[in-house]
Amino acid sequence: MPQDRHDAFAWIDAQRERRDRAGLVRRLSPRPADSPLLDLASNDYLGLARHPEVTAAAAVAAHRWGAGSTGSRLVTGSTELHTTLERELAEFCGFEAALVFSSGYAANLAAVSALSGRDALVVSDADNHASLIDGCRLSRAEIAVVPHADPDAVRKALDAAEGAEADAGEAGEARRRALVVSDAVFSVDGDAAPLAALAGAARPYGAALVVDEAHGLGVLGEGGRGAVHEAGLAGAPDVVVTATLSKSLGSQGGAVLGPARVIDHLVNSARTFIFDTGLNPAAVGAALASLRLLRREPERAARVRTVAMGLYGRLTAAGLAAVRPDASVVSVRAPSPEEAVRWAADCRAAGLMVGCFRPPSVPDGVSRLRLTSRGDLTEEQVEGAVDVIVRTAPTA
Amino acid sequence: MPQDRHDAFAWIDAQRERRDRAGLVRRLSPRPADSPLLDLASNDYLGLARHPEVTAAAAVAAHRWGAGSTGSRLVTGSTELHTTLERELAEFCGFEAALVFSSGYAANLAAVSALSGRDALVVSDADNHASLIDGCRLSRAEIAVVPHADPDAVRKALDAAEGAEADAGEAGEARRRALVVSDAVFSVDGDAAPLAALAGAARPYGAALVVDEAHGLGVLGEGGRGAVHEAGLAGAPDVVVTATLSKSLGSQGGAVLGPARVIDHLVNSARTFIFDTGLNPAAVGAALASLRLLRREPERAARVRTVAMGLYGRLTAAGLAAVRPDASVVSVRAPSPEEAVRWAADCRAAGLMVGCFRPPSVPDGVSRLRLTSRGDLTEEQVEGAVDVIVRTAPTA
Repeated sequence: MPQDRHDAFAWIDAQRERRDRAGLVRRLSPRPADSPLLDLASNDYLGLARHPEVTAAAAVAAHRWGAGSTGSRLVTGSTELHTTLERELAEFCGFEAALVFSSGYAANLAAVSALSGRDALVVSDADNHASLIDGCRLSRAEIAVVPHADPDAVRKALDAAEGAEADAGEAGEARRRALVVSDAVFSVDGDAAPLAALAGAARPYGAALVVDEAHGLGVLGEGGRGAVHEAGLAGAPDVVVTATLSKSLGSQGGAVLGPARVIDHLVNSARTFIFDTGLNPAAVGAALASLRLLRREPERAARVRTVAMGLYGRLTAAGLAAVRPDASVVSVRAPSPEEAVRWAADCRAAGLMVGCFRPPSVPDGVSRLRLTSRGDLTEEQVEGAVDVIVRTAPTA
Repeated sequence: MPQDRHDAFAWIDAQRERRDRAGLVRRLSPRPADSPLLDLASNDYLGLARHPEVTAAAAVAAHRWGAGSTGSRLVTGSTELHTTLERELAEFCGFEAALVFSSGYAANLAAVSALSGRDALVVSDADNHASLIDGCRLSRAEIAVVPHADPDAVRKALDAAEGAEADAGEAGEARRRALVVSDAVFSVDGDAAPLAALAGAARPYGAALVVDEAHGLGVLGEGGRGAVHEAGLAGAPDVVVTATLSKSLGSQGGAVLGPARVIDHLVNSARTFIFDTGLNPAAVGAALASLRLLRREPERAARVRTVAMGLYGRLTAAGLAAVRPDASVVSVRAPSPEEAVRWAADCRAAGLMVGCFRPPSVPDGVSRLRLTSRGDLTEEQVEGAVDVIVRTAPTA
C-alpha cells in the first residue's frame, strides 16, 4: 500500500510543480475600491460599470426587488424587472425575444447544448471561447472543429455531413440538426468573425447560426447593436445571438436572443436556465440602466472603436506586433510567457493595468498583452498608456 | 429538396407539440416587486434576500465597487470584497480556503471537472443536481452513477475500479484519481445524504469527497455551518464543499471550499473560474452581510428546521404524502403532472406560492409540490399555508 494512499489530492502538488517550472502559475490580485492604476485590462468597454446612473440603478433594484432573485427563473426567480430587460435588449439588438441567464457562460452552455443534441452536428470555430466549447461538450453532438474564421471550411463540414446522411439513405427523413457556432469578436486577438459569409455557408444546409456577441454588443454595429446587426442578420429566423451583460453593459449576467420559439424552447429545456438561480436584481437593474444609457448616447460605441484604433496605431508605429482591432481588444504579442508576465508587471509598476494572456488561455500557445480600449479614456490617458507599454516592452 | 429546407428550427415546433400534449410546457410567471402571495416556493430559507441589512449591503457595494466586476477573476474581476467573503465563508464553514464563482452551477462544474479529468473515476449519486451531472459530463472521466444515498454502492464502485486497476498491473504507479460526489441535501425531496458513511466509503480508496451544500448551508449544522460541518468532516484534507450564495444567503453566486491547495488548483485550472466574469460586487456584498447576520443570529438556522418539521407534521396529519424533511424542503407527492399543476395553481389563486416539480426536473418521474420553509414565517402563516394546501389537494 503506497504511503500516500489516503492523500486524495497528491496529484495536485505534482501539477502545481509542473506549472511552477513552466512559469504558468496564476495568482489572484484583488483590487481595492479606489485603485490608482489606469485600467486597460477590464472588459468594461463603455466605462459604465462605475457610471453613477448604472450603480444607482443596481442599488435601487436591490432595495426594491431584493438582494437575490430567490429561486430558479421557473419558480420564484423571474421578476418583472427581468422581463423588462429581456424585452428592451431584444428590441435593441433587433430580435423577437431574449432570455437572461446568470452569466454569459451559462447562456452559451444553454444555446449550444439545447439547440443541438445527441444526433446533431455542431460546426465550431477553432478559436471559440471556452464556454462555447463546453457547450459543445455538454451537447453530446458530433463536433466539427473548423479552422479559425473560415467559411469555406464550415461549408465543407456541413457538406460532408449531408453527404454521409444521403449515403445512409436518410434523405427523405427529417433533416439532421446542424449548428454553426462562432464568437462575433474573438476575445484573445480582438478580430471579428466573417458573419455574413458564415450565414451564407450555413443556410443552404438548413443549419442555424449561433453567434456570441460578448465582445460585439455595445461596440460594433449601429449604436452598439452588435456585429450580427451590422451584418444584417438580426432577427433572421435561423440566427441566435448570445451576449453578456458583464462587458459593455458593466454588470453581470448573460442572455440569448432569437426567434420567440427558440427562447420558448430554452425556457423548457436549457439546463443552465432551469436549474440555476435567476440573475440577482441589482445586476438586472444595472444592465437595464446601461442599455438605456447606450440607446440615449449611441456615440459611446463608436468612441470605443476610435480609442482601440488609436492604441493600435501608436503601438505599431513604435514597432510592436499588435493585431489590428476590429472592436475594442488590442492584442500585442510577447516573445514568451515569462516575458509577458514581466512586461505586464512592469506596466503595473508604472501605474497601468493590462491583461496578460498565456497558455492555456490562448488558442495558439503565443503569449500576449491584451489591452482593452474604453470609451471613457481621454487622449492623454491613451498616450500615457502607450508610453508605458513601449517603454517596458521586451527588447527584440 | 424538402420544403422546410431552410427552416433550421422546424424540429423545435415538433418538440413543443409533444410537450403540449404531455402537459409539460413551462411558462415564466414574472413576479411584481410587492407580491401579495405568501412565498413557500423560493430558496430564500432564512428570509434574508429582503433583509434591510442585506439589501443595503448590496447597494453600498454597487456604489463603492461598481455594478460589475469588469473581468475574469484572474484579470480585473477580483476585488478585496471577494477576498473578504472568501475568507469569512471558509472560516465559518471550517475550511482552509474558499473561492467564489458567479453561480453555484459554475462552482459545481468547476469542482467536479477540475478535480477529476479524463483518467479519473467519478462516483455520483443518482439523484444529484443537474449542475453536478453536467460537471461529470464535462470532466470526461469515467462516471459510475450509484443508487441514491447508498454508501455500500459507492464502496463497490470504487472497489471494482481498484480491482480493474490491479488487474491491469498498475498497482505500483500513481493511483487513479477518484471522486465521490453528492448533494448534502437533495433538492427535490429535501432528504440529507449519509455524509459520514460516504466519507467512510471513499477514504480507504484514497477517493476525495465533493459535497454540494446548496440546501445545507444556513440550515444544517451548528448555526447553519452545513451538513459537512455537522458530520465532522469540515476541513478534512480529502473533503471539498460547494455552496450557493443564492439560497440561505439570499444573494447570488457560488463557492468552493476546501484545502488551500485545492483552491489554488481551481484558480489555475477551472474553466468556469478562468473564463467567466467575477461575481458582481452587489452580490458579493449581500452574501457577506447575510453571512455576518447568520453568525450573529445563529438561531435562524434552527428556526428553518422547526418550521419545516411543523409543515410536515401538519400535512401528514391531514393525510398528505409528504417526505420527512431533513432540512428546509418539504416535498408532497401529486398523482400526476396535470394534478400537480392544477394544485399549485389553486394554491396560487388562494394566495400561496408553492413549487411544482414535474418531469424532467424530478429524478423518478413523480410530480410533487415542493414547499420550502423559511425562518421568518410565523405560526399563523404556516397554519394558513397548510390550510390552503390541504383544501386544494387532489381527492384520493
